Amino acid sequence: MLKSIQSVQNEKVKEWKKLLQKKGRDTANQYIMEGFHLVEEASQNPALITTVIVREDVAVPEWVPSSMEIYQVSTEVANAISDTETNQGIFAICKKEDHEVPKQAKSFLLLDAIQDPGNLGTIIRTADAAGVDAVILGDGTVDPYNPKVIRSAQGSHFHIPFIKGNLFNWVQQLKETGVSVYGTALEGAEPFHIVEPRHPFALILGNEGNGVNPNLLELANQNLYVPIYGKSESLNVTIAGGILLYHFMNMAHS
Amino acid sequence: MLKSIQSVQNEKVKEWKKLLQKKGRDTANQYIMEGFHLVEEASQNPALITTVIVREDVAVPEWVPSSMEIYQVSTEVANAISDTETNQGIFAICKKEDHEVPKQAKSFLLLDAIQDPGNLGTIIRTADAAGVDAVILGDGTVDPYNPKVIRSAQGSHFHIPFIKGNLFNWVQQLKETGVSVYGTALEGAEPFHIVEPRHPFALILGNEGNGVNPNLLELANQNLYVPIYGKSESLNVTIAGGILLYHFMNMAHS
Repeated sequence: MLKSIQSVQNEKVKEWKKLLQKKGRDTANQYIMEGFHLVEEASQNPALITTVIVREDVAVPEWVPSSMEIYQVSTEVANAISDTETNQGIFAICKKEDHEVPKQAKSFLLLDAIQDPGNLGTIIRTADAAGVDAVILGDGTVDPYNPKVIRSAQGSHFHIPFIKGNLFNWVQQLKETGVSVYGTALEGAEPFHIVEPRHPFALILGNEGNGVNPNLLELANQNLYVPIYGKSESLNVTIAGGILLYHFMNMAHS
Repeated sequence: MLKSIQSVQNEKVKEWKKLLQKKGRDTANQYIMEGFHLVEEASQNPALITTVIVREDVAVPEWVPSSMEIYQVSTEVANAISDTETNQGIFAICKKEDHEVPKQAKSFLLLDAIQDPGNLGTIIRTADAAGVDAVILGDGTVDPYNPKVIRSAQGSHFHIPFIKGNLFNWVQQLKETGVSVYGTALEGAEPFHIVEPRHPFALILGNEGNGVNPNLLELANQNLYVPIYGKSESLNVTIAGGILLYHFMNMAHS
Protein backbone atom coordinates (compact mmCIF):
# COMPACT_ATOMS: atom_id res chain seq x y z
CA MET A 1 0.00 0.00 0.00
CA LEU A 2 1.90 2.98 -1.32
CA LYS A 3 1.07 6.46 -0.04
CA SER A 4 2.68 9.64 -1.29
CA ILE A 5 3.82 12.68 0.72
CA GLN A 6 5.27 15.76 -0.96
CA SER A 7 5.20 18.43 1.73
CA VAL A 8 7.41 18.76 4.81
CA GLN A 9 4.36 20.33 6.48
CA ASN A 10 2.52 17.02 6.40
CA GLU A 11 1.63 15.77 9.90
CA LYS A 12 3.32 12.39 9.32
CA VAL A 13 6.55 14.12 8.38
CA LYS A 14 6.38 16.21 11.55
CA GLU A 15 5.95 12.99 13.57
CA TRP A 16 8.94 11.37 11.86
CA LYS A 17 11.14 14.43 12.35
CA LYS A 18 10.48 14.29 16.08
CA LEU A 19 12.14 10.87 16.15
CA LEU A 20 15.48 12.55 15.38
CA GLN A 21 15.36 13.87 18.98
CA LYS A 22 15.48 11.77 22.14
CA LYS A 23 12.36 13.42 23.55
CA GLY A 24 10.39 12.52 20.44
CA ARG A 25 11.61 8.92 20.54
CA ASP A 26 10.74 8.58 24.22
CA THR A 27 7.25 9.97 23.68
CA ALA A 28 6.45 7.84 20.64
CA ASN A 29 8.34 4.76 21.87
CA GLN A 30 9.63 4.54 18.31
CA TYR A 31 12.79 5.38 16.43
CA ILE A 32 13.85 6.06 12.86
CA MET A 33 16.65 4.45 10.89
CA GLU A 34 17.97 5.07 7.41
CA GLY A 35 19.97 3.32 4.74
CA PHE A 36 19.46 0.13 2.73
CA HIS A 37 21.50 -2.14 4.97
CA LEU A 38 19.67 -1.22 8.16
CA VAL A 39 16.18 -1.12 6.71
CA GLU A 40 16.74 -4.55 5.13
CA GLU A 41 17.83 -5.97 8.52
CA ALA A 42 14.80 -4.40 10.18
CA SER A 43 12.50 -5.84 7.49
CA GLN A 44 13.45 -9.33 8.60
CA ASN A 45 11.68 -8.60 11.83
CA PRO A 46 8.25 -7.35 10.69
CA ALA A 47 6.97 -7.16 14.25
CA LEU A 48 9.38 -4.31 14.95
CA ILE A 49 9.04 -2.20 11.84
CA THR A 50 5.88 -0.14 11.40
CA THR A 51 6.59 1.94 8.31
CA VAL A 52 9.00 2.07 5.38
CA ILE A 53 9.67 5.41 3.67
CA VAL A 54 11.32 5.70 0.25
CA ARG A 55 12.32 8.79 -1.68
CA GLU A 56 10.40 9.05 -4.96
CA ASP A 57 13.48 8.31 -7.09
CA VAL A 58 14.17 5.09 -5.14
CA ALA A 59 12.48 1.81 -6.09
CA VAL A 60 10.83 -0.06 -3.23
CA PRO A 61 13.15 -3.03 -2.63
CA GLU A 62 11.75 -6.54 -3.00
CA TRP A 63 12.59 -7.42 0.58
CA VAL A 64 10.12 -4.88 2.00
CA PRO A 65 7.23 -7.02 3.32
CA SER A 66 4.14 -6.41 1.18
CA SER A 67 2.02 -6.03 4.31
CA MET A 68 4.02 -2.96 5.29
CA GLU A 69 2.79 0.62 5.20
CA ILE A 70 5.03 2.30 2.61
CA TYR A 71 5.35 6.01 1.97
CA GLN A 72 6.86 7.54 -1.11
CA VAL A 73 8.20 10.99 -0.31
CA SER A 74 9.77 13.99 -2.04
CA THR A 75 13.49 14.70 -1.80
CA GLU A 76 12.60 17.60 0.50
CA VAL A 77 10.82 15.28 2.92
CA ALA A 78 13.65 12.72 2.77
CA ASN A 79 16.18 15.42 3.65
CA ALA A 80 13.97 16.64 6.50
CA ILE A 81 13.80 13.26 8.23
CA SER A 82 17.43 12.31 7.59
CA ASP A 83 20.29 12.57 10.04
CA THR A 84 22.97 12.35 7.34
CA GLU A 85 24.32 14.83 4.83
CA THR A 86 23.45 12.65 1.87
CA ASN A 87 20.78 10.08 2.60
CA GLN A 88 20.21 6.87 0.63
CA GLY A 89 16.51 7.63 0.28
CA ILE A 90 15.21 4.78 2.42
CA PHE A 91 14.02 4.91 6.03
CA ALA A 92 12.12 2.78 8.49
CA ILE A 93 10.15 3.60 11.60
CA CYS A 94 10.61 0.95 14.27
CA LYS A 95 9.10 0.22 17.65
CA LYS A 96 11.49 0.26 20.57
CA GLU A 97 11.95 -3.23 21.93
CA ASP A 98 11.97 -4.27 25.55
CA HIS A 99 15.17 -6.23 25.86
CA GLU A 100 15.88 -8.72 28.59
CA VAL A 101 19.18 -10.11 29.75
CA PRO A 102 19.12 -13.84 28.90
CA LYS A 103 19.03 -16.04 32.03
CA GLN A 104 22.01 -18.06 30.82
CA ALA A 105 24.06 -14.94 30.04
CA LYS A 106 27.76 -15.51 30.74
CA SER A 107 29.33 -12.38 29.28
CA PHE A 108 28.32 -8.82 30.05
CA LEU A 109 29.47 -5.43 28.86
CA LEU A 110 28.75 -2.54 31.25
CA LEU A 111 28.97 0.97 29.82
CA ASP A 112 29.59 3.83 32.22
CA ALA A 113 28.58 7.11 30.58
CA ILE A 114 29.67 6.51 26.98
CA GLN A 115 28.76 9.87 25.48
CA ASP A 116 29.66 9.78 21.81
CA PRO A 117 26.93 8.21 19.62
CA GLY A 118 29.47 6.84 17.12
CA ASN A 119 31.37 5.21 19.96
CA LEU A 120 28.27 3.63 21.48
CA GLY A 121 27.19 2.23 18.11
CA THR A 122 30.65 0.81 17.41
CA ILE A 123 30.78 -0.72 20.89
CA ILE A 124 27.38 -2.41 20.43
CA ARG A 125 28.52 -3.75 17.03
CA THR A 126 31.79 -5.00 18.53
CA ALA A 127 30.05 -6.64 21.50
CA ASP A 128 27.73 -8.37 19.03
CA ALA A 129 30.68 -9.55 16.92
CA ALA A 130 32.50 -10.84 20.00
CA GLY A 131 29.41 -12.79 21.07
CA VAL A 132 28.76 -10.88 24.29
CA ASP A 133 25.40 -11.90 25.82
CA ALA A 134 24.17 -8.51 27.07
CA VAL A 135 25.07 -4.83 27.18
CA ILE A 136 24.10 -2.73 30.22
CA LEU A 137 23.86 1.02 29.58
CA GLY A 138 24.71 2.93 32.73
CA ASP A 139 23.68 6.48 33.60
CA GLY A 140 25.07 9.16 31.32
CA THR A 141 25.28 6.85 28.33
CA VAL A 142 23.86 8.35 25.13
CA ASP A 143 20.44 7.13 23.94
CA PRO A 144 20.94 3.84 22.04
CA TYR A 145 18.19 4.88 19.62
CA ASN A 146 20.05 8.04 18.55
CA PRO A 147 20.31 7.83 14.71
CA LYS A 148 24.11 7.95 14.79
CA VAL A 149 24.23 5.09 17.30
CA ILE A 150 21.91 3.05 15.08
CA ARG A 151 24.08 3.75 12.04
CA SER A 152 27.37 2.89 13.70
CA ALA A 153 25.95 -0.32 15.16
CA GLN A 154 25.06 -1.49 11.61
CA GLY A 155 22.16 -3.72 12.60
CA SER A 156 23.51 -5.07 15.89
CA HIS A 157 20.52 -3.45 17.61
CA PHE A 158 18.58 -6.47 16.33
CA HIS A 159 21.13 -9.03 17.56
CA ILE A 160 22.21 -8.23 21.08
CA PRO A 161 20.10 -7.28 24.11
CA PHE A 162 20.86 -3.89 25.64
CA ILE A 163 19.15 -2.47 28.70
CA LYS A 164 19.53 0.57 30.89
CA GLY A 165 20.60 -0.07 34.42
CA ASN A 166 22.34 1.18 37.53
CA LEU A 167 25.88 -0.12 37.23
CA PHE A 168 26.45 -0.24 41.00
CA ASN A 169 23.48 -2.57 41.38
CA TRP A 170 24.59 -4.61 38.39
CA VAL A 171 28.15 -5.04 39.60
CA GLN A 172 26.93 -6.14 43.02
CA GLN A 173 24.40 -8.59 41.63
CA LEU A 174 26.84 -10.02 39.09
CA LYS A 175 29.46 -10.60 41.76
CA GLU A 176 26.88 -12.30 44.00
CA THR A 177 26.08 -14.75 41.21
CA GLY A 178 29.72 -15.63 40.61
CA VAL A 179 30.44 -13.38 37.65
CA SER A 180 33.97 -11.90 37.69
CA VAL A 181 33.78 -8.15 37.15
CA TYR A 182 36.65 -6.38 35.38
CA GLY A 183 37.02 -2.62 35.32
CA THR A 184 39.23 -0.68 32.96
CA ALA A 185 41.61 1.92 34.37
CA LEU A 186 44.98 3.45 33.60
CA GLU A 187 46.18 3.27 37.21
CA GLY A 188 45.97 0.49 39.78
CA ALA A 189 45.31 -1.99 37.03
CA GLU A 190 46.99 -4.98 35.38
CA PRO A 191 48.05 -5.15 31.72
CA PHE A 192 45.24 -7.23 30.22
CA HIS A 193 47.36 -9.67 28.23
CA ILE A 194 49.04 -11.20 31.26
CA VAL A 195 45.69 -11.78 32.97
CA GLU A 196 44.00 -15.14 32.37
CA PRO A 197 40.33 -14.25 31.91
CA ARG A 198 37.83 -15.90 34.20
CA HIS A 199 34.33 -16.81 32.97
CA PRO A 200 31.54 -15.83 33.36
CA PHE A 201 32.69 -12.22 33.23
CA ALA A 202 31.56 -8.63 33.02
CA LEU A 203 33.71 -5.87 31.56
CA ILE A 204 33.16 -2.19 32.39
CA LEU A 205 34.09 0.50 29.85
CA GLY A 206 34.05 4.15 30.84
CA ASN A 207 33.42 7.67 29.69
CA GLU A 208 35.61 9.02 26.88
CA GLY A 209 37.13 11.75 29.03
CA ASN A 210 36.92 10.50 32.59
CA GLY A 211 37.04 6.73 32.30
CA VAL A 212 35.12 4.44 34.64
CA ASN A 213 33.74 5.92 37.87
CA PRO A 214 36.39 5.21 40.56
CA ASN A 215 33.72 3.86 42.92
CA LEU A 216 32.84 1.22 40.35
CA LEU A 217 36.52 0.36 39.92
CA GLU A 218 36.66 -0.20 43.69
CA LEU A 219 33.88 -2.76 43.43
CA ALA A 220 35.38 -4.65 40.50
CA ASN A 221 37.21 -7.95 41.10
CA GLN A 222 40.12 -6.74 39.02
CA ASN A 223 40.99 -3.76 36.85
CA LEU A 224 42.72 -4.04 33.50
CA TYR A 225 44.42 -1.72 31.05
CA VAL A 226 45.65 -1.96 27.49
CA PRO A 227 49.35 -1.02 27.53
CA ILE A 228 50.50 1.99 25.53
CA TYR A 229 53.75 0.97 23.83
CA GLY A 230 54.08 4.16 21.78
CA LYS A 231 53.60 7.87 22.43
CA SER A 232 49.83 8.14 22.22
CA GLU A 233 48.22 9.18 25.51
CA SER A 234 45.43 6.67 25.32
CA LEU A 235 43.30 4.50 23.08
CA ASN A 236 39.82 5.30 21.88
CA VAL A 237 37.33 3.50 24.18
CA THR A 238 35.94 1.47 21.27
CA ILE A 239 39.40 0.11 20.45
CA ALA A 240 40.27 -0.71 24.05
CA GLY A 241 36.87 -2.38 24.36
CA GLY A 242 37.39 -4.48 21.24
CA ILE A 243 40.83 -5.63 22.36
CA LEU A 244 39.61 -6.58 25.84
CA LEU A 245 36.38 -8.28 24.69
CA TYR A 246 38.30 -10.46 22.24
CA HIS A 247 40.83 -11.33 24.93
CA PHE A 248 37.92 -12.73 26.96
CA MET A 249 35.86 -14.22 24.16
CA ASN A 250 38.72 -15.95 22.31
CA MET A 251 39.37 -17.81 25.54
CA ALA A 252 35.73 -18.94 25.67
CA HIS A 253 36.02 -20.30 22.12
CA SER A 254 39.31 -22.17 22.31
CA MET B 1 52.84 39.56 18.42
CA LEU B 2 49.04 39.69 18.41
CA LYS B 3 47.21 40.68 15.23
CA SER B 4 43.47 41.06 14.96
CA ILE B 5 41.17 39.97 12.13
CA GLN B 6 37.43 40.67 12.18
CA SER B 7 36.29 40.00 8.63
CA VAL B 8 35.89 36.70 6.82
CA GLN B 9 36.83 38.62 3.67
CA ASN B 10 40.38 39.12 4.95
CA GLU B 11 42.98 37.50 2.68
CA LYS B 12 44.53 35.52 5.54
CA VAL B 13 41.14 34.02 6.37
CA LYS B 14 40.67 33.02 2.74
CA GLU B 15 44.04 31.28 2.84
CA TRP B 16 43.16 29.43 6.05
CA LYS B 17 39.77 28.34 4.70
CA LYS B 18 41.47 26.76 1.70
CA LEU B 19 43.26 24.42 4.10
CA LEU B 20 39.94 22.75 4.86
CA GLN B 21 40.17 21.23 1.35
CA LYS B 22 42.79 18.77 0.13
CA LYS B 23 43.63 20.90 -2.90
CA GLY B 24 44.36 23.90 -0.67
CA ARG B 25 46.53 21.81 1.65
CA ASP B 26 48.48 20.35 -1.26
CA THR B 27 49.09 23.79 -2.78
CA ALA B 28 50.14 25.47 0.46
CA ASN B 29 51.93 22.40 1.85
CA GLN B 30 50.25 23.31 5.13
CA TYR B 31 47.27 22.12 7.13
CA ILE B 32 45.00 23.47 9.83
CA MET B 33 44.11 21.89 13.15
CA GLU B 34 41.77 22.98 15.90
CA GLY B 35 41.17 22.37 19.59
CA PHE B 36 43.24 22.93 22.72
CA HIS B 37 44.68 19.44 22.95
CA LEU B 38 45.99 19.37 19.39
CA VAL B 39 47.30 22.92 19.30
CA GLU B 40 49.13 22.33 22.58
CA GLU B 41 50.80 19.20 21.14
CA ALA B 42 51.74 21.10 18.00
CA SER B 43 53.20 23.94 20.09
CA GLN B 44 55.76 21.54 21.50
CA ASN B 45 57.22 21.36 18.03
CA PRO B 46 57.70 25.04 17.08
CA ALA B 47 59.42 24.12 13.81
CA LEU B 48 56.14 22.70 12.52
CA ILE B 49 53.67 25.31 13.60
CA THR B 50 53.59 28.62 11.75
CA THR B 51 50.57 30.40 13.18
CA VAL B 52 48.21 30.20 16.15
CA ILE B 53 44.69 31.60 15.85
CA VAL B 54 42.44 32.30 18.83
CA ARG B 55 38.87 33.50 18.93
CA GLU B 56 38.59 36.89 20.64
CA ASP B 57 36.83 35.43 23.71
CA VAL B 58 39.61 32.87 24.23
CA ALA B 59 42.74 33.73 26.19
CA VAL B 60 46.02 32.89 24.51
CA PRO B 61 47.30 29.86 26.47
CA GLU B 62 50.66 30.12 28.24
CA TRP B 63 52.09 27.23 26.27
CA VAL B 64 51.89 29.12 22.96
CA PRO B 65 55.54 30.00 22.15
CA SER B 66 56.02 33.76 22.40
CA SER B 67 57.90 33.78 19.11
CA MET B 68 54.76 32.61 17.35
CA GLU B 69 52.59 34.69 15.04
CA ILE B 70 49.24 34.88 16.82
CA TYR B 71 45.96 36.10 15.36
CA GLN B 72 42.94 37.09 17.38
CA VAL B 73 39.80 36.59 15.30
CA SER B 74 36.07 37.24 15.48
CA THR B 75 33.60 34.40 16.14
CA GLU B 76 32.58 34.68 12.49
CA VAL B 77 36.14 34.05 11.33
CA ALA B 78 36.58 31.17 13.81
CA ASN B 79 33.43 29.52 12.46
CA ALA B 80 34.59 30.02 8.87
CA ILE B 81 37.89 28.21 9.38
CA SER B 82 36.48 25.45 11.59
CA ASP B 83 35.58 21.95 10.52
CA THR B 84 33.42 21.28 13.59
CA GLU B 85 29.93 22.34 14.58
CA THR B 86 31.11 24.00 17.75
CA ASN B 87 34.78 24.93 17.73
CA GLN B 88 36.92 25.51 20.82
CA GLY B 89 38.19 28.82 19.45
CA ILE B 90 41.81 27.81 18.97
CA PHE B 91 43.53 26.77 15.75
CA ALA B 92 47.02 26.25 14.42
CA ILE B 93 48.48 26.32 10.94
CA CYS B 94 51.19 23.70 10.53
CA LYS B 95 53.68 22.79 7.84
CA LYS B 96 53.33 19.33 6.38
CA GLU B 97 56.25 17.20 7.42
CA ASP B 98 58.24 14.85 5.25
CA HIS B 99 58.17 11.61 7.16
CA GLU B 100 60.64 8.80 6.70
CA VAL B 101 60.36 5.20 7.69
CA PRO B 102 63.02 4.61 10.37
CA LYS B 103 65.80 2.31 9.17
CA GLN B 104 65.38 0.06 12.20
CA ALA B 105 61.61 -0.20 11.77
CA LYS B 106 60.31 -3.63 12.78
CA SER B 107 56.56 -3.14 12.66
CA PHE B 108 54.59 -1.71 9.77
CA LEU B 109 50.95 -0.94 9.19
CA LEU B 110 49.87 -0.85 5.53
CA LEU B 111 46.55 0.80 4.74
CA ASP B 112 44.81 -0.15 1.52
CA ALA B 113 42.23 2.51 0.63
CA ILE B 114 40.92 3.48 4.06
CA GLN B 115 38.29 6.02 3.05
CA ASP B 116 36.65 7.31 6.20
CA PRO B 117 38.61 10.16 7.83
CA GLY B 118 37.48 9.18 11.34
CA ASN B 119 38.67 5.63 10.72
CA LEU B 120 42.06 6.75 9.40
CA GLY B 121 42.61 9.03 12.39
CA THR B 122 41.63 6.31 14.85
CA ILE B 123 43.91 3.83 13.10
CA ILE B 124 46.88 6.24 13.26
CA ARG B 125 46.18 6.84 16.97
CA THR B 126 45.91 3.09 17.61
CA ALA B 127 49.11 2.31 15.68
CA ASP B 128 50.86 4.98 17.73
CA ALA B 129 49.52 3.50 20.98
CA ALA B 130 50.57 -0.01 19.97
CA GLY B 131 54.09 1.23 19.20
CA VAL B 132 54.03 0.53 15.46
CA ASP B 133 57.12 1.99 13.74
CA ALA B 134 55.56 3.27 10.49
CA VAL B 135 52.26 3.59 8.66
CA ILE B 136 52.15 3.30 4.87
CA LEU B 137 49.16 4.94 3.20
CA GLY B 138 48.26 3.10 0.01
CA ASP B 139 46.34 4.47 -2.97
CA GLY B 140 42.75 5.46 -2.25
CA THR B 141 43.44 6.24 1.39
CA VAL B 142 41.97 9.55 2.54
CA ASP B 143 44.35 12.53 2.98
CA PRO B 144 46.00 12.21 6.42
CA TYR B 145 45.84 16.02 6.79
CA ASN B 146 42.04 16.07 6.46
CA PRO B 147 40.79 17.93 9.58
CA LYS B 148 38.70 14.99 10.73
CA VAL B 149 41.68 12.64 10.44
CA ILE B 150 43.76 15.07 12.50
CA ARG B 151 41.07 15.29 15.14
CA SER B 152 40.53 11.53 15.44
CA ALA B 153 44.27 10.90 15.64
CA GLN B 154 44.47 13.20 18.70
CA GLY B 155 48.08 14.24 18.20
CA SER B 156 49.50 10.98 16.90
CA HIS B 157 50.41 12.83 13.70
CA PHE B 158 53.36 14.16 15.70
CA HIS B 159 54.40 10.74 17.03
CA ILE B 160 54.39 8.19 14.26
CA PRO B 161 55.80 8.42 10.73
CA PHE B 162 53.26 8.00 7.92
CA ILE B 163 54.08 8.07 4.24
CA LYS B 164 52.24 7.46 1.01
CA GLY B 165 53.34 4.48 -0.99
CA ASN B 166 52.48 1.78 -3.48
CA LEU B 167 51.51 -1.22 -1.35
CA PHE B 168 52.55 -3.77 -3.95
CA ASN B 169 56.07 -2.36 -3.96
CA TRP B 170 56.08 -2.17 -0.18
CA VAL B 171 54.93 -5.75 0.33
CA GLN B 172 57.56 -7.02 -2.07
CA GLN B 173 60.36 -4.99 -0.50
CA LEU B 174 59.33 -5.91 3.03
CA LYS B 175 59.26 -9.61 2.21
CA GLU B 176 62.70 -9.35 0.58
CA THR B 177 64.11 -7.90 3.80
CA GLY B 178 62.64 -10.68 5.94
CA VAL B 179 59.53 -8.92 7.20
CA SER B 180 56.50 -11.25 7.52
CA VAL B 181 53.51 -9.69 5.80
CA TYR B 182 50.01 -10.42 7.12
CA GLY B 183 46.88 -9.57 5.20
CA THR B 184 43.40 -9.41 6.66
CA ALA B 185 40.59 -11.28 4.94
CA LEU B 186 37.35 -13.01 5.79
CA GLU B 187 38.05 -16.00 3.54
CA GLY B 188 41.17 -18.09 3.04
CA ALA B 189 42.55 -16.77 6.30
CA GLU B 190 43.42 -18.06 9.78
CA PRO B 191 41.77 -16.92 13.01
CA PHE B 192 44.38 -14.52 14.39
CA HIS B 193 44.49 -15.79 17.95
CA ILE B 194 45.78 -19.23 17.04
CA VAL B 195 48.60 -17.72 14.95
CA GLU B 196 51.91 -17.09 16.71
CA PRO B 197 53.02 -13.71 15.36
CA ARG B 198 56.42 -13.52 13.70
CA HIS B 199 58.56 -10.39 13.96
CA PRO B 200 59.43 -8.13 12.20
CA PHE B 201 55.95 -7.89 10.68
CA ALA B 202 53.68 -5.82 8.48
CA LEU B 203 49.91 -5.87 8.78
CA ILE B 204 47.63 -4.81 5.91
CA LEU B 205 44.20 -3.34 6.68
CA GLY B 206 41.71 -2.76 3.88
CA ASN B 207 38.92 -0.61 2.59
CA GLU B 208 35.76 -0.35 4.71
CA GLY B 209 33.54 -1.91 2.07
CA ASN B 210 35.81 -4.09 -0.03
CA GLY B 211 38.58 -5.16 2.33
CA VAL B 212 42.17 -5.62 1.18
CA ASN B 213 42.84 -5.89 -2.58
CA PRO B 214 42.87 -9.65 -3.35
CA ASN B 215 46.13 -9.28 -5.29
CA LEU B 216 47.79 -7.95 -2.15
CA LEU B 217 46.36 -10.83 -0.12
CA GLU B 218 47.98 -13.21 -2.64
CA LEU B 219 51.37 -11.65 -1.95
CA ALA B 220 51.06 -11.76 1.84
CA ASN B 221 52.85 -14.49 3.81
CA GLN B 222 49.67 -15.24 5.69
CA ASN B 223 46.16 -13.84 5.99
CA LEU B 224 44.33 -13.42 9.28
CA TYR B 225 40.82 -12.70 10.44
CA VAL B 226 39.16 -11.75 13.68
CA PRO B 227 36.46 -14.38 14.37
CA ILE B 228 32.84 -13.29 14.61
CA TYR B 229 31.33 -15.17 17.56
CA GLY B 230 28.00 -13.33 17.47
CA LYS B 231 25.58 -12.24 14.76
CA SER B 232 27.30 -9.10 13.49
CA GLU B 233 28.45 -9.37 9.89
CA SER B 234 31.82 -7.83 10.49
CA LEU B 235 33.91 -5.58 12.69
CA ASN B 236 34.76 -1.95 12.02
CA VAL B 237 38.23 -1.84 10.43
CA THR B 238 39.59 0.26 13.31
CA ILE B 239 38.52 -2.40 15.84
CA ALA B 240 39.90 -5.31 13.83
CA GLY B 241 43.12 -3.31 13.39
CA GLY B 242 43.43 -2.61 17.11
CA ILE B 243 42.88 -6.26 18.04
CA LEU B 244 45.43 -7.51 15.51
CA LEU B 245 48.08 -4.88 16.25
CA TYR B 246 47.94 -5.64 19.96
CA HIS B 247 48.16 -9.37 19.23
CA PHE B 248 51.47 -8.64 17.50
CA MET B 249 52.80 -5.94 19.77
CA ASN B 250 52.01 -7.64 23.09
CA MET B 251 54.19 -10.49 21.88
CA ALA B 252 57.03 -8.07 21.18
CA HIS B 253 56.77 -6.73 24.74
CA SER B 254 56.52 -9.94 26.72
